[in-house]
Amino acid sequence: MIAEKMKGMVANSSAIRAMFEEGNRLAKIYGRENVYDFSLGNPNVAAPAAVKKAIIELLEEEDPVVLHGYSSNSGYEEVKQAVADSLNERFGTSFAAKNIIMTVGAAGGLNVILKTLLNPGDEVIVFAPYFGEYRSYTNNYDGVLVEISPNTETFQPKLDEFEQKITAKTKAVIVNTPNNPTGVVYSEDTIKKLAAIMEVKQKEFGTDIYLISDEPYRELAYDGVEVPYLTKYYANTVVGYSYSKSLSLPGERIGYLVIPDEVADSKDVIAAAIVANRILGFVNAPTLQQKMVAKCLNEKTDISYYDRNRETLYNGLKECGFNCIKPEGAFYLFVKSPFENEKQFCEMAKKYNLLIVPGSSFGCPGYVRLAYCVAYEIIVNSLPKFKELAEEIGVI
Amino acid sequence: MIAEKMKGMVANSSAIRAMFEEGNRLAKIYGRENVYDFSLGNPNVAAPAAVKKAIIELLEEEDPVVLHGYSSNSGYEEVKQAVADSLNERFGTSFAAKNIIMTVGAAGGLNVILKTLLNPGDEVIVFAPYFGEYRSYTNNYDGVLVEISPNTETFQPKLDEFEQKITAKTKAVIVNTPNNPTGVVYSEDTIKKLAAIMEVKQKEFGTDIYLISDEPYRELAYDGVEVPYLTKYYANTVVGYSYSKSLSLPGERIGYLVIPDEVADSKDVIAAAIVANRILGFVNAPTLQQKMVAKCLNEKTDISYYDRNRETLYNGLKECGFNCIKPEGAFYLFVKSPFENEKQFCEMAKKYNLLIVPGSSFGCPGYVRLAYCVAYEIIVNSLPKFKELAEEIGVI
Repeated sequence: MIAEKMKGMVANSSAIRAMFEEGNRLAKIYGRENVYDFSLGNPNVAAPAAVKKAIIELLEEEDPVVLHGYSSNSGYEEVKQAVADSLNERFGTSFAAKNIIMTVGAAGGLNVILKTLLNPGDEVIVFAPYFGEYRSYTNNYDGVLVEISPNTETFQPKLDEFEQKITAKTKAVIVNTPNNPTGVVYSEDTIKKLAAIMEVKQKEFGTDIYLISDEPYRELAYDGVEVPYLTKYYANTVVGYSYSKSLSLPGERIGYLVIPDEVADSKDVIAAAIVANRILGFVNAPTLQQKMVAKCLNEKTDISYYDRNRETLYNGLKECGFNCIKPEGAFYLFVKSPFENEKQFCEMAKKYNLLIVPGSSFGCPGYVRLAYCVAYEIIVNSLPKFKELAEEIGVI
Repeated sequence: MIAEKMKGMVANSSAIRAMFEEGNRLAKIYGRENVYDFSLGNPNVAAPAAVKKAIIELLEEEDPVVLHGYSSNSGYEEVKQAVADSLNERFGTSFAAKNIIMTVGAAGGLNVILKTLLNPGDEVIVFAPYFGEYRSYTNNYDGVLVEISPNTETFQPKLDEFEQKITAKTKAVIVNTPNNPTGVVYSEDTIKKLAAIMEVKQKEFGTDIYLISDEPYRELAYDGVEVPYLTKYYANTVVGYSYSKSLSLPGERIGYLVIPDEVADSKDVIAAAIVANRILGFVNAPTLQQKMVAKCLNEKTDISYYDRNRETLYNGLKECGFNCIKPEGAFYLFVKSPFENEKQFCEMAKKYNLLIVPGSSFGCPGYVRLAYCVAYEIIVNSLPKFKELAEEIGVI
């Protein structure tokens, strides 16, 4: 008999992952090129050539006993230093190696910091729409997820509701910008106001409220938009990063946490996070990929590829009569469902081999998410299908 | 402020890991070759050449979008099939791909299965001495660790005490053979008796008691000793495996769980374990290493290297007057401390740059663990130091 807690988890298992498996099933029947799978944030741009080169160099030059051996639970010292240096150069911060913990992707990092911080019953605030896994991660440590309802005009966070929902039990606030699933980048103005509210509430309740910035999409911003670096706006900020999207390596599970000295009880938080990384079973971030990353800190994925997809899909869907805001970052479009029950819309789309994810998975029913990190041809060939779908529904 | 639960964890943080960091510190002062660091199970035998070859082949031949992309949460289908086929061939089992879940090492796998199974208050039985992390892993899911005291004659499990300590709350029993820290291999006779006791108790209490076999040291057995494959002796067995030791890749975090069809509620356990693998933040086992493993299933580490270390260190310590049983597997010696308080012994050893780990870390005070997965020269050069230590103590 499985754990009670897992029963609900299995029943409500990720719609995104279910769709991913469904896509694989349909691809076997119809051929991969005839399935328009917009379900998963699995980058279609290949990793930069430097990644392969770096891995081969490491294999040729490094002692395999060291290369594949355990590192410290927080990662190799020289890798942490290289990450800190790179951040300092880019964002004018002043992190040391000790502020960096290499993690098994951002998902690993978020679990580590939530295990580090949460007592049972502690509240974690998220802004809908949000990555549905935040609910699971919070639940892992018996935290309580508190949702701020979506502003469906701009998809910037609703700060008035946020202010009201912070309580003495609020331990953390998770933001994700560029955002999954909307592609929206939280503006500097938004961040300043959000930080100011948190400062006031910390004082009011005499508590520490940690801002957790989950930023796997940081490098994916279009039209020259700036993505503010949050540690500069609010002292009590922890950053979770992943190379999944920026280097197209989601399967390799490599990322890091930044826990600045300015964070409340910083020494304790760092020490506990390192222990959490160990006892949750990560032990250390994969060592070959740690060392690869240190060699590829200036590498970039091909943003122009996603940008073309963004333009083509956004314009194509608008022409079909669908409604959505134009994303400034990440590789998702968040489209208004023509029906109130967007799951019905997703089911209808499936008839055209169009795989899209219901907004309910992101705490925002009535919308659907399309991940456009796919081959350009998929976008182009999907548009006639979206047109047929629009005609069936009558939105066109 | 960090979580209450983590405060204790940080305070009692792994003595092994602390020693590992101490070793790095001393190496900087005295030079690596003058520090006799027996603290960590970090293999000193290089990964087989086939590992490097396989990784380079994969990088040269596979589409990087697939190679580094997400796999299913349970792993690549073809990798799981290859692992199942290999186990079936070696052990006469009949696992299918669906019975395998690729994991972030054995530590990841154990966390996954414990999260899958444990309700708060459920009991997990371990046999002292045991890998201290079992306590943390059990605590992660609010389970209660129940220790069976050590049989210091043979270090086989004390089955009479085991029988008495199984209750209606016993959800799992963890065994680790070849054993860390003793190097003992549980005999087939022991396993049969242990299985029989568990069968009876399952019936008596009307419960499912899962046997979790943690076997990263399976391939490290000397003198032709057989390591029984536990699923053949007890239906309700889950196996956790790691390539850390068998392919010398502890830093890469690659292993698997086997959840056979014969396990109670097998379908639910598999489904929940896949969800647990996702929501704990592992997401999937590192993809490049998954594919590497599938190409290296018949590769072996150089046992003869460890065997020579074993003989040299065992004989050397005996000559110094220290007391220990000769291990049949793994790469650890478990030595009786000349003092009741073995931590005092470890401190004294440190004066000679000998780094060894107190048995208290394994639920067995009065003993110390030496990991002999080190360079042969370290063993040879450490023996005069052990002799000096023995002379200081007066055991020689």
